Amino acid sequence: VQVSELSADMAELGNYRHFMQKEIHEQPRAIADTLLAAVTTSSVSPGIFGPGAEDILRAVNGVRILACGTSYHAAKVAEYWMESLTGLPCRAEIASEYRYRDSVADPDTLIVTISQSGETRDTIDAMIQAKNLGHKYSLAICNVPESALVRTADLKFLTRAGPEIGVASTKAFTTQLVALFLLTLVLGRLRGKISDQQEKVWLEQLRELPGLVQQALALEPQIAAWAEHFADKHHALFLGRGVHYPIAMEGALKLKEISYIHAEAYPAGELKHGPLALVDKDMPVVAVAPNDILLEKLKSNLQEVRARGGELYVFADLDSHFTPQEGLHLLRLPTNAGPLSPIVHTVPLQILAYHAALCKGTDVDKPRNLAKSVTVE
Amino acid sequence: VQVSELSADMAELGNYRHFMQKEIHEQPRAIADTLLAAVTTSSVSPGIFGPGAEDILRAVNGVRILACGTSYHAAKVAEYWMESLTGLPCRAEIASEYRYRDSVADPDTLIVTISQSGETRDTIDAMIQAKNLGHKYSLAICNVPESALVRTADLKFLTRAGPEIGVASTKAFTTQLVALFLLTLVLGRLRGKISDQQEKVWLEQLRELPGLVQQALALEPQIAAWAEHFADKHHALFLGRGVHYPIAMEGALKLKEISYIHAEAYPAGELKHGPLALVDKDMPVVAVAPNDILLEKLKSNLQEVRARGGELYVFADLDSHFTPQEGLHLLRLPTNAGPLSPIVHTVPLQILAYHAALCKGTDVDKPRNLAKSVTVE
Repeated sequence: VQVSELSADMAELGNYRHFMQKEIHEQPRAIADTLLAAVTTSSVSPGIFGPGAEDILRAVNGVRILACGTSYHAAKVAEYWMESLTGLPCRAEIASEYRYRDSVADPDTLIVTISQSGETRDTIDAMIQAKNLGHKYSLAICNVPESALVRTADLKFLTRAGPEIGVASTKAFTTQLVALFLLTLVLGRLRGKISDQQEKVWLEQLRELPGLVQQALALEPQIAAWAEHFADKHHALFLGRGVHYPIAMEGALKLKEISYIHAEAYPAGELKHGPLALVDKDMPVVAVAPNDILLEKLKSNLQEVRARGGELYVFADLDSHFTPQEGLHLLRLPTNAGPLSPIVHTVPLQILAYHAALCKGTDVDKPRNLAKSVTVE
Repeated sequence: VQVSELSADMAELGNYRHFMQKEIHEQPRAIADTLLAAVTTSSVSPGIFGPGAEDILRAVNGVRILACGTSYHAAKVAEYWMESLTGLPCRAEIASEYRYRDSVADPDTLIVTISQSGETRDTIDAMIQAKNLGHKYSLAICNVPESALVRTADLKFLTRAGPEIGVASTKAFTTQLVALFLLTLVLGRLRGKISDQQEKVWLEQLRELPGLVQQALALEPQIAAWAEHFADKHHALFLGRGVHYPIAMEGALKLKEISYIHAEAYPAGELKHGPLALVDKDMPVVAVAPNDILLEKLKSNLQEVRARGGELYVFADLDSHFTPQEGLHLLRLPTNAGPLSPIVHTVPLQILAYHAALCKGTDVDKPRNLAKSVTVE
């Protein structure tokens, strides 16, 4: 209900040129609101996922997450979080694939579905398919309370992003990630994999998250300058590793959606297995690299990229010890955000896509061929 | 040993312009040789995977497949086969991602690794990592008998592709798929999910497979004509669905590797969630569509693709009832190959990439920046 009441006010552009820009800048508020409803004490209650959540979340023996598009990228981040922090096997899958294949169902595996609108046809039908296959428990993460997805699920978590007008999802994505991290915390606690003390540390980091996102937003001028280098390009390669690989996927998707630049993401280790052949002066390489493992591995490739005139744009943070050099552009986020780092690192990629689209003069909020909610197959 | 003896002879180009072309055309022979060693009776023996295989394969409760590049695409096909035909949960994962993340290990889940050379650093280290995490059983699918990967695994299957010289893998990939289908058959039999009669049917189809691949090779003139339309393009989108989605991934990778055309694959259901924004007259869309489900769903998008001048190139077979129309090019494989369809559908995509590269005049067998075996990280 709260979300609906806000619609009229929030649909105003204010000082922003586009809804997407406004929504990018609303993220500290959207994240804070999403947290406010969930994190009131020194511990996250399973009850934030609805009545009966504690019993269900104690009973599950694994997690399968079904989603499309940007929401699928949030699911992919959760895959890394869940297996690392809860000890539960977790698998993210594209909803349209899941619903049409023969899959092996374990009844006690929790089905999590994610959709901003809650009306994504493939995601709703994937959840129904999972139930038909015998899955006993389902949870929807959604930004719209009255939606079909929320009505179909046993448990639910409503993100408080507020109405999202821009077709390219921004604040819905980062609040979905917050919801998934909260679910990770609760599952880890219930299974004894996360201690009281560890939970307190991460809750403190969650409270700092809106501030960290604000710091990332402050990089806009530098990122806008980078974006000028992308405006005349037709290609880009986005690299990440581990939990930041899905962030690279999301960054590439944003650039695709609104600037029509053919951006593609790869996990960095796959570079030598094919995509390196594409790299030349016309294909900038963007790396999401908040730690040195990826950067160290990129160094050996960098020589080849440079030899072909390729430029490397790196989003790092204080824990990266790489120094800029010819052909390597480096921006540092001011803090290492620990497990929340993928949320913070999303923001500069959104800004990059937005400014690249501005330079190209595309219709940022209504990119060609795309609809806000994909309510048909 | 057999493979090594053949090296000298087979390294000759004969009447072919490039090793890649030769290796594409060797596939009926490579597949027949790979089958010959394994399928001698009316049933596939678990022993084809080495001594003790039957006990191990009876004991496993799931399958995790670790690989890089083209071998990863074979793993993705197996993900669909395994869950559909054996009832075992199966998950394919990029080796370089697996080895660096915290994953949940079930000791009884079989670890399958795939590598043409058996010297792929990330794949070897991923298998070692899986063993360290407690996985009890491992199986290597490989084209080189003496390789490090084969020496490290409990069970093994040697593909009989013969030496592969072209950097872009072709016959190694299709014989890997044969190996994975045999593994699916054996696991399905041992678990009572595949009947005697069903096995006989599929063994018969396997015996017909070299002939079906030969039929696909016969389409070369038509595909070469299509390739001329790709030579001046910088982009391409490859679509597939279900078990043919990884084939679309492999087709896109081939085009990338040797023609330097930025081709990207999507599961068809994701088209409306972003990549459709890219489609215009400069981005041809290739669909691997041996059945009508994908084509029916593409129809609604086709209007939009056509409105932007996009051209659609469809590889179908006799079971597709779509008719050609303005902007839609259709080639039919002469037979529906049942579950082996992904193997047959690989071939025209290899031919498309090869002829696109010929038109562009690239160094087909040694594409820039790439090595045949990625023996370093």
